[in-house]
Amino acid sequence: MAFKAPVKDQLFCMKELAGIDQIAQIPGFEDAGYETAQAVLEEAAKFNEEVVAPLNWSGDQDHGSWDNGVVKASPGFKEAYKALTEGGWQGLQMPTEYGGQGLPKTIGAACIEMTMAANLSFSLCSILTTGATEALLTAASDELKQRYIPKMIEGTWTGTMNLTEPQAGSDLALVRSKAVKQADGTYRISGQKIFITYGEHDMSENIVHLVLARTPDAPEGVKGISLFVVPKFMVNADGSLGQRNDVYCASIEEKLGIKASPTAVLVYGDDKGEVGPGAIGYLVGEENRGLEYMFIMMNAARYDVGLQGLAVSERAYQHAVAYARDRVQSRPVDGSAKESVAIIHHPDVKRMLMTMRALIEGERAMAMVGAAAYDTAHHHPDADTAKQAQAFYEFLVPLIKGFSTENSVEVTSLGVQVHGGMGFIEETGAAQYYRDSRILPIYEGTTAIQANDLVGRKTARDGGAMARAIAAQIADVEGQLTGRASEAGKKYAAQLKTAREAFLQVVDFVLANVKANPNAVFAGSVPYLMLTGNLVSGWQMGRALIVAEDKLAAGEDAAFMSAKVATCRFYGDHILARVASLRDSILQGGESVTAMPVDAF
Amino acid sequence: MAFKAPVKDQLFCMKELAGIDQIAQIPGFEDAGYETAQAVLEEAAKFNEEVVAPLNWSGDQDHGSWDNGVVKASPGFKEAYKALTEGGWQGLQMPTEYGGQGLPKTIGAACIEMTMAANLSFSLCSILTTGATEALLTAASDELKQRYIPKMIEGTWTGTMNLTEPQAGSDLALVRSKAVKQADGTYRISGQKIFITYGEHDMSENIVHLVLARTPDAPEGVKGISLFVVPKFMVNADGSLGQRNDVYCASIEEKLGIKASPTAVLVYGDDKGEVGPGAIGYLVGEENRGLEYMFIMMNAARYDVGLQGLAVSERAYQHAVAYARDRVQSRPVDGSAKESVAIIHHPDVKRMLMTMRALIEGERAMAMVGAAAYDTAHHHPDADTAKQAQAFYEFLVPLIKGFSTENSVEVTSLGVQVHGGMGFIEETGAAQYYRDSRILPIYEGTTAIQANDLVGRKTARDGGAMARAIAAQIADVEGQLTGRASEAGKKYAAQLKTAREAFLQVVDFVLANVKANPNAVFAGSVPYLMLTGNLVSGWQMGRALIVAEDKLAAGEDAAFMSAKVATCRFYGDHILARVASLRDSILQGGESVTAMPVDAF
Repeated sequence: MAFKAPVKDQLFCMKELAGIDQIAQIPGFEDAGYETAQAVLEEAAKFNEEVVAPLNWSGDQDHGSWDNGVVKASPGFKEAYKALTEGGWQGLQMPTEYGGQGLPKTIGAACIEMTMAANLSFSLCSILTTGATEALLTAASDELKQRYIPKMIEGTWTGTMNLTEPQAGSDLALVRSKAVKQADGTYRISGQKIFITYGEHDMSENIVHLVLARTPDAPEGVKGISLFVVPKFMVNADGSLGQRNDVYCASIEEKLGIKASPTAVLVYGDDKGEVGPGAIGYLVGEENRGLEYMFIMMNAARYDVGLQGLAVSERAYQHAVAYARDRVQSRPVDGSAKESVAIIHHPDVKRMLMTMRALIEGERAMAMVGAAAYDTAHHHPDADTAKQAQAFYEFLVPLIKGFSTENSVEVTSLGVQVHGGMGFIEETGAAQYYRDSRILPIYEGTTAIQANDLVGRKTARDGGAMARAIAAQIADVEGQLTGRASEAGKKYAAQLKTAREAFLQVVDFVLANVKANPNAVFAGSVPYLMLTGNLVSGWQMGRALIVAEDKLAAGEDAAFMSAKVATCRFYGDHILARVASLRDSILQGGESVTAMPVDAF
Repeated sequence: MAFKAPVKDQLFCMKELAGIDQIAQIPGFEDAGYETAQAVLEEAAKFNEEVVAPLNWSGDQDHGSWDNGVVKASPGFKEAYKALTEGGWQGLQMPTEYGGQGLPKTIGAACIEMTMAANLSFSLCSILTTGATEALLTAASDELKQRYIPKMIEGTWTGTMNLTEPQAGSDLALVRSKAVKQADGTYRISGQKIFITYGEHDMSENIVHLVLARTPDAPEGVKGISLFVVPKFMVNADGSLGQRNDVYCASIEEKLGIKASPTAVLVYGDDKGEVGPGAIGYLVGEENRGLEYMFIMMNAARYDVGLQGLAVSERAYQHAVAYARDRVQSRPVDGSAKESVAIIHHPDVKRMLMTMRALIEGERAMAMVGAAAYDTAHHHPDADTAKQAQAFYEFLVPLIKGFSTENSVEVTSLGVQVHGGMGFIEETGAAQYYRDSRILPIYEGTTAIQANDLVGRKTARDGGAMARAIAAQIADVEGQLTGRASEAGKKYAAQLKTAREAFLQVVDFVLANVKANPNAVFAGSVPYLMLTGNLVSGWQMGRALIVAEDKLAAGEDAAFMSAKVATCRFYGDHILARVASLRDSILQGGESVTAMPVDAF
């Protein structure tokens, strides 16, 4: 089924909720207003619909190959990646001094959302390269930056992030890879890294690995981890490629989904290159500060995975809608037709499609607002404004990551269900999204890791200040909604209020117990994340409802605005409604989660 | 990971909740009391653990082959099916006059649950054969019964159910396959059937297809469908096999899961056999009553799919627990250890495992109580008792099917999540359950079809009588719980009361609106099913809590009983808590489900 980029809703979120025109007032972003956004998004839509999307299903079927350390990407991926970089998409948000276009994240996020929806596996090459580039921008010396970043932006080289080892997944304190300093200032790296996305492939001339490892005298735990650049091929002084470095792809995983994205086991230091034993690496920043640099970048990576959740949901939704319009089965329950009708007319099919749609639109609104906060935080000239925006963005990241990816599993599952038996047949395509989405609540920090972050760093550390500041903003929107003439506005205000009050109860519970009874709090941390993500998305949907009703009254874009109103109403009735159960579960159930002795399971 | 049959919990449900000793007082079941159950279940456990379970993962990997109409089953399946039938398992619940053992469903259901958990794909051959056998028992002539049933029970022949056609899935009114009566009283069948589980394979000497088709002068719609027996090989008068009939396997589907179960496209009447054009079929019962016979059998089939949901959940749970005990990662949040610990100690992992466990135990309790109701309905000498039990059983069937299968998608997804990144690697095995489970809310009637049944035939038709009778029984359990000395009992009573009252509100809503505003009611039909399944399982968990606390106080089987108490408490705090949101969604949200015009999606 042809993919259609959701440009219209992205522009709505960007303009009406994220405030792209305010972003355009920040120095450096003067040319990045609504008109620019519109032009860029339309180009991005064309590219992703025509070039990237057609490779999604074929990539799942023929997902490349591994042969003695050499990995061939899925057919067409190499050419598509060339087209992506030549179109300037890899450098969209990158600094102009390295060949990027310096556009705000508010625009960039919408573009990469399209690529993810068009082809999740393919998009990861771009995203991981962006992640590695940002790590270098954050902490590398000018020399390293100059040597690597322009090539990564122009697309001749790609990047990877090497964190995980067999014994060190969520727990990076357990990283064991070694880095031994040489007389020339370089390091020799050895160890095994697993789950390395695009760790090996033939889509670029070189691969720039960012690798976490320990120096021999490093302290134990997370404070003894350093970050290194390890190129697949050594880079000569003139920028040309030299010897093969000592990093080798031992295998590619057989995965449930995102099959066209090669997930590599990489072995460093087995003397399989041309440089002798030990991969040659260059320290990024200072020794023992690797995790700190990674964490800066990880917020970006987590944000991106949240977008992936949103994106694969959008794709699954479009697929399901197309099938539901086409498939004729059974008469309507209200007797409005004597013949069988397209299943989209049946209430339960509508319920499923509306659930998918409402989650997607809520998540997109939250993500776009998050992107604008990022732009403000990183570029606003007023330090206080920037600082406040940064705190807000950091609060949102675990929600964007956790809420959107957990929901993507639900949404893609509903996508299969809408297809009935055909959904279970791989050829139909709905099952691919269901398989692909399942990694999203896991990688770049599981939902539990996001929830720990939300509880600890984002809620408890400032004594609930940001949580309450958000609640106050939501109360303000409730006030606006209550004051409206429309029934829908008043009803939504009441639903938002109920959800906000539940949130505040939970925040109080978290603050009161996180020290004294951490088990009870962390037993409810994922429900707390889901409740908060639901509320914050619902807050944005409340703002959207106000805008859409006003535009509708003004006769502006009636079809889009009335669909937006309908989706907001559904969000209030059915998605916000989930908050009550989550609250009860958190407040009453901390003890019963942990009561059972481990041996009794 | 080795599978361990959940014999202990099955026996608990059977004895304490389903009342196996009452079943043993029904004439014909005198030898089917607790002792028998125990002996049979222990044998079944041995067989399924040792013979069936080891073929689960290998079957997923090497799932047989299709070559020019001939299908080879996965390696080992043929031998395992032979062992299953030789062990007498295929005839467990079948009448003794045809070679069965005549045991009650209360025991039979527990045995087949084990087979399903051991190997879902494999179990389907047995289940479909049972389904076809029951269709014959229900409606076929003595001659047909004598000719087919003994062979199906002894395992030399297997059976299939042929309902679906490309244009006729949920909507059987659209069935087009033709059956033309011949001078000798047989029929010639032609048409295409899809999604036929074990429609072709080499595990038995013959395959007995039960086929829905229309005679030339049949009325339109569901009242013009007849049921036929169509053997793969004709059966001679002496029971030996004759010519190849004109039914041909055109292809096998590539599916998301249950890959080792061959899903066939069957073509009837293409003159590919030895009998000339048209498959020779024998009418079962009377013309035009096919759907009626199917429906009798479909309740059994739906019950069985509900068990599949429970079973695959149990398997996923065991897999996840084993991993969580083994995988060491991160220090405990409560500071109780300085080193990283097995992840089963982390509150969120416990939350996931307890959610899986509570759903499984609740579903099993409901399923076992349902099986006992079936036995009472079919065998109790008192007509009124039997009738009441039948109505209760029929109310439970959509819950057992819908609730347990929808939850199986959640439970197997949690199973993947517990494994972190390893869960996404196929070799780990957790992903198989996630893939396998996804068909369960679809086949034998999607969840929406179950929910329509619950609303229409099971709730509205008797004016809510059975729904309210169940609520009254639940109120009685609340009373028992409230009167207990334990805090857990009192808390559970309050939670059950809240859930029951929500249920009654929804029942009132359904009854008040089903005629006047069917769209609003059917917009909430699946949430109503989930709410009701949750409550009915929770009712059984409330009964289990009483028994377990009493046994614990009496010093009986302390480890099992205290785990049961812990699981019941979790059910009350976290699973029953879901009811509130479902109620709100149903009561307030009927209109917003259907408000969006079809063109606006």
